[in-house]
Amino acid sequence: MTEKEKMINGFIYNPVSPQLVLDRDKASRILTKYNKKVFHEVNMRNRMIKKLMNTSGYFWIKPPFFCDYGYNIYLGKEVMVNFNCVFLDVCPIIIGDYTLIGPNTQIYTACHSLDYKERQENKEFGKPVRIGDHVWIGGNVTILPGVSIGDHSIIGAGSVVTKDIPANVIAVGNPCKVIKDQKNVSIQSAKRI
Amino acid sequence: MTEKEKMINGFIYNPVSPQLVLDRDKASRILTKYNKKVFHEVNMRNRMIKKLMNTSGYFWIKPPFFCDYGYNIYLGKEVMVNFNCVFLDVCPIIIGDYTLIGPNTQIYTACHSLDYKERQENKEFGKPVRIGDHVWIGGNVTILPGVSIGDHSIIGAGSVVTKDIPANVIAVGNPCKVIKDQKNVSIQSAKRI
Amino acid sequence: MTEKEKMINGFIYNPVSPQLVLDRDKASRILTKYNKKVFHEVNMRNRMIKKLMNTSGYFWIKPPFFCDYGYNIYLGKEVMVNFNCVFLDVCPIIIGDYTLIGPNTQIYTACHSLDYKERQENKEFGKPVRIGDHVWIGGNVTILPGVSIGDHSIIGAGSVVTKDIPANVIAVGNPCKVIKDQKNVSIQSAKRI
Repeated sequence: MTEKEKMINGFIYNPVSPQLVLDRDKASRILTKYNKKVFHEVNMRNRMIKKLMNTSGYFWIKPPFFCDYGYNIYLGKEVMVNFNCVFLDVCPIIIGDYTLIGPNTQIYTACHSLDYKERQENKEFGKPVRIGDHVWIGGNVTILPGVSIGDHSIIGAGSVVTKDIPANVIAVGNPCKVIKDQKNVSIQSAKRI
Repeated sequence: MTEKEKMINGFIYNPVSPQLVLDRDKASRILTKYNKKVFHEVNMRNRMIKKLMNTSGYFWIKPPFFCDYGYNIYLGKEVMVNFNCVFLDVCPIIIGDYTLIGPNTQIYTACHSLDYKERQENKEFGKPVRIGDHVWIGGNVTILPGVSIGDHSIIGAGSVVTKDIPANVIAVGNPCKVIKDQKNVSIQSAKRI
Repeated sequence: MTEKEKMINGFIYNPVSPQLVLDRDKASRILTKYNKKVFHEVNMRNRMIKKLMNTSGYFWIKPPFFCDYGYNIYLGKEVMVNFNCVFLDVCPIIIGDYTLIGPNTQIYTACHSLDYKERQENKEFGKPVRIGDHVWIGGNVTILPGVSIGDHSIIGAGSVVTKDIPANVIAVGNPCKVIKDQKNVSIQSAKRI
């Protein structure tokens, strides 16, 4: 396997291999331009994003946005990503249809060894993140490598999601825990979460 | 009511109405320029901010800064906002005199429905945030829609403020809770919070 | 003592003294340029950083990066700082060799008085932050003034570090607490933290 293949598939890889350095450079060049664009330039912005990520319909990513590669990010249709998010995409980050992501949210797939001697050797590995359809991720949320979040769920602002979250729940906190199974709620009963 | 009036007054509104799209575009154009300015260009920066927000004296906002509209933000005199803050101002964000806001702090007034079917229909609504005079908000704090924070209070760095905080207290954590009623403290007794 | 000397040594100082205003302006001008640079311009970027900080070997700071002065930051060799970090360096921020710092991490040395009347008088003071060798700070971590983190330790993403953390541990949460003394771990046993 190439270092890129090892990286995407969750094996230990070398992040300074020439291919991966070039890939990060390409993403950085696109995003540096992207992050200068203003609101009404959304069509131009979206053409840039399509060179970087896998998209499947309309989407909206408010600049600035930061990621490592882009090609590991899969956006469903009608996904909205608010200001100043960081996605570390050494492994796939898969985001379902109609999912909303608040500002400053961090989605990480990148891991280092727990053994400092191995960290020094530049050994890295990743784990994918999967977010379902119709999910609402509040602002300033941190999502850790390997996490899955089920369809329709809501993650409260400021949460740190260290473990999988099932579908149809509201979950909050650090670490993020389910506080409500969410059935039969309507906008009339909506309150701050 | 117009969609803008509905938005500001906390009713369900359509965020893609033409007026609101134009308003967000205007804010984005001003802030994109603002965020390129350096430290000593503070007078030029502040003229830009005055086109965007309601101010009432001297203020200092360190770029980059991000918000949706600007016209819903009300700054008291001598307000300081540090690097990289995000204010989602679909409803009023009212900040009192001499209040200090740390870097990366998030102030949100924007809500979505807890019902995913309603989220898909682009129904949104907001709740105002009110911060008193002489408040100190630490860095990387998240303040949720509808929250009020009383005069002279201190919110510890990294807190997630989900409920109202009274005046004259120190409050910390996720969720943010009062840990101290703050009377008769002086700089001699100041310690890390 | 000059105001700069008072600041660096942890005494109450006046942040709007002319010298300190010039110093923050210089840092802002360098970082505004720095933050426009892309991935492959790392040599140019690192020359800029060397005008700003104290370095002792190779380092990698992904733009954007924000700090107040720069001259109070001391980087060991092979330090990596990921996207969008904020270091408020009114006092020394000392980072050891081979230490990795995740995106959006906040390191603060700046304090205000707990007495609001003193805050209004522009009295500020700071406390240094010391991070050892081979430390791994996860993303979206907030490190408060006066904190020391020992060699080889790991701070989980999203943590708020309010007190010292010893060497060779894993610590997580808000407030950040030790969850594991870290001996004899290897990459085989690595799991998400």
